[in-house]
Amino acid sequence: MTVVEPMLNAEPSTIIKPLVDTALLPGHGLQHDVVTAAHRVYEHLIAIWAPGVIEAAHDLGVFVELSAGPATAERLAERLDTEPRATRVLMDALYAYDIVERTTEASAPPSYRLPAAMRECLLPGGMFSLVGKIAYDRRLAWRAWQDFAGAVRRGSRDGSGSDQLNQISVDEYESLVSGINFWAPPVVQVLRQGLRDLAWPCDRAVRMVDVGCGTGLYGQLLLREFPQWTAVGLDVARIAPLATSQAAELGVAARFEATVCDFWQDSWGQDVDLILLANIFHLQTPESAETLVRLAAEALAEDGMLCIVDHVVDDERTAKSAQDRFALLFAASMLATGGGDAYTLKDYDDWFVRYGLRRERILETPMHRILLVTRA
Amino acid sequence: MTVVEPMLNAEPSTIIKPLVDTALLPGHGLQHDVVTAAHRVYEHLIAIWAPGVIEAAHDLGVFVELSAGPATAERLAERLDTEPRATRVLMDALYAYDIVERTTEASAPPSYRLPAAMRECLLPGGMFSLVGKIAYDRRLAWRAWQDFAGAVRRGSRDGSGSDQLNQISVDEYESLVSGINFWAPPVVQVLRQGLRDLAWPCDRAVRMVDVGCGTGLYGQLLLREFPQWTAVGLDVARIAPLATSQAAELGVAARFEATVCDFWQDSWGQDVDLILLANIFHLQTPESAETLVRLAAEALAEDGMLCIVDHVVDDERTAKSAQDRFALLFAASMLATGGGDAYTLKDYDDWFVRYGLRRERILETPMHRILLVTRA
Repeated sequence: MTVVEPMLNAEPSTIIKPLVDTALLPGHGLQHDVVTAAHRVYEHLIAIWAPGVIEAAHDLGVFVELSAGPATAERLAERLDTEPRATRVLMDALYAYDIVERTTEASAPPSYRLPAAMRECLLPGGMFSLVGKIAYDRRLAWRAWQDFAGAVRRGSRDGSGSDQLNQISVDEYESLVSGINFWAPPVVQVLRQGLRDLAWPCDRAVRMVDVGCGTGLYGQLLLREFPQWTAVGLDVARIAPLATSQAAELGVAARFEATVCDFWQDSWGQDVDLILLANIFHLQTPESAETLVRLAAEALAEDGMLCIVDHVVDDERTAKSAQDRFALLFAASMLATGGGDAYTLKDYDDWFVRYGLRRERILETPMHRILLVTRA
Repeated sequence: MTVVEPMLNAEPSTIIKPLVDTALLPGHGLQHDVVTAAHRVYEHLIAIWAPGVIEAAHDLGVFVELSAGPATAERLAERLDTEPRATRVLMDALYAYDIVERTTEASAPPSYRLPAAMRECLLPGGMFSLVGKIAYDRRLAWRAWQDFAGAVRRGSRDGSGSDQLNQISVDEYESLVSGINFWAPPVVQVLRQGLRDLAWPCDRAVRMVDVGCGTGLYGQLLLREFPQWTAVGLDVARIAPLATSQAAELGVAARFEATVCDFWQDSWGQDVDLILLANIFHLQTPESAETLVRLAAEALAEDGMLCIVDHVVDDERTAKSAQDRFALLFAASMLATGGGDAYTLKDYDDWFVRYGLRRERILETPMHRILLVTRA
């Protein structure tokens, strides 16, 4: 596993391109608004094609094979023991989704190429590899979403009738945790600027605790930004070693300590300068979420900063932003796979007030919001 | 089933909104291009949420319940016998996808409302209802896409080793055929203009044959545009009555005749002025597709027009348009569900030349292309 910086030859388009040329929809005529709505709902329904295509390519070893260099469909079929025409259809579908490039020389069959950035996403081992996420989806997501109606009937209550915490197993968590590393860099970039904007004293020996740290990437990227800082990452025994090895890879091992603990039972420390809770609240019930805020308030230094990174629904806005849409859908995903929710800004603010805290700032990132919280 | 024209109170957004605020992705820093690519691949992977959410709502009867009027999540949970919090999560997910609207009065829980255009799409019976498509997906698509790798291994060959036609059963076809009616209106609007632009004589008693007509909507909408035209729709015994009843509904019953036949064996007629083949080629093997062109050439009048509406891949263009992306992905969908393909412009042109035909025009529609073809 190596950190390649910068990557060459990779300029992936940043957006998902539409499959309907909506400019050609009629603005009048027979039920034209129904026809327009039907095109949009249909495009949502056929969105199942995208994970189907990408995960099939993963299952068949297409990305591993293409990492050796460009290949025609015929060559890939030979190597992967797949049917040639069907392989061409798969490769063209990956090309349609801008996952691979397709080069055509006159009169030669097209050759498919995996751009460098996509290679890092789609092969195992890289810091931003999605292979763990794909493995998790292969194991759980299809069945869960196909029977989402069942989850809505049952809810996420356990046998005793209480809401349950998300029931992700340690196996699944280990598979998923590095698969969502890619969330961290843009969040940390915004967080760093947010702390500066608040004039919070960053240029000192800040002691940070990253609660439920996973691979520890949020804290580790902050350590790279702030050379005087030190961090403790709290997670379970299976996960903490991942954080330790990644800290070494990012050159911050001397200032990052992964501590195996149960953060519900064990102390987070005293007078902690910065407490980071990234992607922890969405796993909680309202009760356990409130407990987290209490534990944070108990551990935070007088001038400390609590940073919550999560899918926060901002009900103060009337327009739905990408962050709101994602947060609401992420709550559905948590329900489908066993518990958790996306809490509103009001939920958080109520908890903050209850434990003597105050929200100073809400910051937008590509898929998350950051709450910067101090003592009131 | 009534045709409501125009619909009131319905202005659905025409595009699928992104779940990533890509403007906030960093343009520099640790593997920033990999991080950007990972966000896009992740957004493709979680696209499975959309059919999961919409189909769960369908399964639970949410749309039927909301057709009676707006309701809170609590009220819906009571009526649908679902868990209240989970029902709120489902409704908020539908709201995130712009399927339902959410209205909030101060201090009251939000109320969810199904806009009129969405009601027509999501309830059974309407001309542009997607219920047939949803039923088809519930029965087939999830399993097919979850094991798309298997389809790529096996290909779509039958036991004897030949390519097979799409193996959709009559049951499934009946379920699907009205679920894709919404494709027709924008196609017919473009087709009508295309015929005018070619100065093809439209203002006369044109005899049209719609081969594999399904509900017959393409032909029926053309009959509404051109009062002198008559049409024969060819399809199997289970489907033809759907076309007959829809012709009545659209006020063209006197000029539309649905004929039960096997269009591979039975004659399409002689000296036909306009032959329509809409969404037929993508079900074919290369061999059966060529046969269709031959049969069309045999039936077409000297100054006749062959109109092919399908997912045509235009390899003459370097940029991928929405139509190209959709065509390539539709081929994958046909493979996943049992056979068929999306043919290229060059494939079609080769067949046309072989049977004394010539492509006069290629026209773009929201998800299809139209080929206008005459005798060479």
